[in-house]
Amino acid sequence: MTSSLAGATQEEVRRHNLGRLLRILHLGGPVSRADITRLTGLNRSTVGALTTDLARAGLAVERDPVGRGVGRPSIMVTPHESGAFALAFDLRVERTIAAVVSLGGAVASRREARHTNRDPDPEAVFRQLERLTAELLADAPAGAVCLGVGLAIPGVVRHSDGLVRFAPNMGWVDVPVAAMLEARIPGAGPIVVGNDADMGAIAEHLRGVGRGSANMVFLAGQVGVGGGIILDGRLMVGAGGYGGEVGHMVVNPGGRRCRCGRRGCWETEIGEEAVVRALGGQPGDPVDALLAEVPSAAEAGRLGEIGRWLGIGVGNLVNVFNPDVVVCGGLLSKLLPLVADQVRDELEAALTAPREQVRLALPGMDRDAALIGAAESVFAPLLDDPIGCVERVRERAA
Amino acid sequence: MTSSLAGATQEEVRRHNLGRLLRILHLGGPVSRADITRLTGLNRSTVGALTTDLARAGLAVERDPVGRGVGRPSIMVTPHESGAFALAFDLRVERTIAAVVSLGGAVASRREARHTNRDPDPEAVFRQLERLTAELLADAPAGAVCLGVGLAIPGVVRHSDGLVRFAPNMGWVDVPVAAMLEARIPGAGPIVVGNDADMGAIAEHLRGVGRGSANMVFLAGQVGVGGGIILDGRLMVGAGGYGGEVGHMVVNPGGRRCRCGRRGCWETEIGEEAVVRALGGQPGDPVDALLAEVPSAAEAGRLGEIGRWLGIGVGNLVNVFNPDVVVCGGLLSKLLPLVADQVRDELEAALTAPREQVRLALPGMDRDAALIGAAESVFAPLLDDPIGCVERVRERAA
Repeated sequence: MTSSLAGATQEEVRRHNLGRLLRILHLGGPVSRADITRLTGLNRSTVGALTTDLARAGLAVERDPVGRGVGRPSIMVTPHESGAFALAFDLRVERTIAAVVSLGGAVASRREARHTNRDPDPEAVFRQLERLTAELLADAPAGAVCLGVGLAIPGVVRHSDGLVRFAPNMGWVDVPVAAMLEARIPGAGPIVVGNDADMGAIAEHLRGVGRGSANMVFLAGQVGVGGGIILDGRLMVGAGGYGGEVGHMVVNPGGRRCRCGRRGCWETEIGEEAVVRALGGQPGDPVDALLAEVPSAAEAGRLGEIGRWLGIGVGNLVNVFNPDVVVCGGLLSKLLPLVADQVRDELEAALTAPREQVRLALPGMDRDAALIGAAESVFAPLLDDPIGCVERVRERAA
Repeated sequence: MTSSLAGATQEEVRRHNLGRLLRILHLGGPVSRADITRLTGLNRSTVGALTTDLARAGLAVERDPVGRGVGRPSIMVTPHESGAFALAFDLRVERTIAAVVSLGGAVASRREARHTNRDPDPEAVFRQLERLTAELLADAPAGAVCLGVGLAIPGVVRHSDGLVRFAPNMGWVDVPVAAMLEARIPGAGPIVVGNDADMGAIAEHLRGVGRGSANMVFLAGQVGVGGGIILDGRLMVGAGGYGGEVGHMVVNPGGRRCRCGRRGCWETEIGEEAVVRALGGQPGDPVDALLAEVPSAAEAGRLGEIGRWLGIGVGNLVNVFNPDVVVCGGLLSKLLPLVADQVRDELEAALTAPREQVRLALPGMDRDAALIGAAESVFAPLLDDPIGCVERVRERAA
């Protein structure tokens, strides 16, 4: 008994340590072997063996250090950016963004295409997506390994099979997005389809303003308001993958009818339509242009009610989740600076204990958060088991 | 490198397997070695070695099976109920319940004492608690190991040190409950202080109606409405331990002032005071007696509004958490059968995808859920590392 179990777990330890090292490289960039030793607590010879393994697998590059220091200089280890990549898609209401995201997290190349009409036909979107992918792959470095496909969409996604149950602002109901991707881009590897706010939350948690915060609420507001929740360092998924629909908390039962059918959901009070209305615009007017005309918080009186609703909802989330940080993304990132006072006043009324622990923040990533999060969903299994993951990719390709 | 790591992890594997076995015994009761083999996938000789280890540590009892079957009968393994126990306290608004909970989860003995007045003085409560404990320990089996102390309280508890930040219905603010317990009951082992709804959630998840549900919302309503949230099999804690205060979601901003200071929190609409008011009672009237007079759902028209608010709030939680099950505990367990129609109507309006996955349930445990959950918080480290935990207890006692 003992030897076989011990054998299995020795391999597990190696796998675990390879993952830790690759995670350091992937999220932190180039680092010396000496720093890895310090960061991990592993001894020098172990670190040397592990980085050599990563280099052999095509995931890291080892280089003699440039310049002279005191003592023997330590070898620099770099993520092998042209060694492996993820295909990432950010499906938005009005357009599709496609990118090759390299190991290390950089966007190596990207393409965009607008949808030809509102409520776009899924088949047309996936044809477009196939074309963008062909262009991207033509540019990908020779020999680079495609680890898989990640896609973010503003909708409710079934975790088990990537079925989009409901994407109200695209007019999609029960669209088998993962299956359609598989048909259009066969052989690209595992496919992960996720809600855009969940994907954005992953990106902000790993690389943005949520770095170091184990408990984060990420709000992605535009037409609707989505939420991605990180708890104890992990994305909240729920029973089917539908968790985090904080835009559909009823906060004002006497309010307007929501697209979901209920009355007074949070997104009816702070979403795009509400902002346009508050600024005197007509339905369909471009909210960004209207907001740009609001010169400063002092003159933002017309947004006061919206600020109050933003604060009430954030207060609810603070009481319910006790996060370290609430990140206001998308439209809310433009709104927050204009209504910070109203939000603060409402937030003051949340329970003292969780309120004292929370900060409000603007996103640390640019508008690529969902795209990067989609890529990180593809990188996640690689960071759990680097060598095994690469071997599986090569077997698939053979 | 390899041998020491392998050595460490071989020990880890044994610890892990001992924990798995003890968890089976603790939660499932007596089981044959053959069934353990089947349940765990471990081979027979490994299971034999592990159960012998548990028996030697005083945590399991091995017995020859009674009766004759076909083939060699398998040895029965039982949790050693008088081998180890937790001290569990359920601090309620009007009284304290104290119990010895045995390994295996049975309440071996219990004591209750009413508080002498409302907003009880913490010192008086802990004197009372010390007395109850002395009585309980006098009855405890000789040689049994006290694993620690768990306490449930209707308040907001800081996870790191068991400070009760706010227990509004007891009038407590920043009471160092864990430290006061340590002073009154020294040497009883690690102390875990938790919110009563969190403790109830743990109990329902492990032993009640939430068994088998990895994602559960447990509502504990009486004066206020607390929530304990299980996500992916684990209690949601949040940054400081304050997560799950679902009673303080604003659902009706035009509503009544809440004890927390905000207006229209969910608990102002469905808590005890609201129910008493709806039934024509005066503040302070006993809600249970009033509810007992409501003969059936058909005549429960006066509760219709409360049912609607219950449904709106549950709908919010379904959209936000995507649980398998929402358990209505405490006062809500009496309310739900009377307003099931209204709740169902409101819940119909939640998002389709999460709504299809959720069931509403009454608690599976009796009113001891918080007490049992407090005990399970003490058993948790034992189930992670049975032998190590027992050794630490014996060292402490020596």
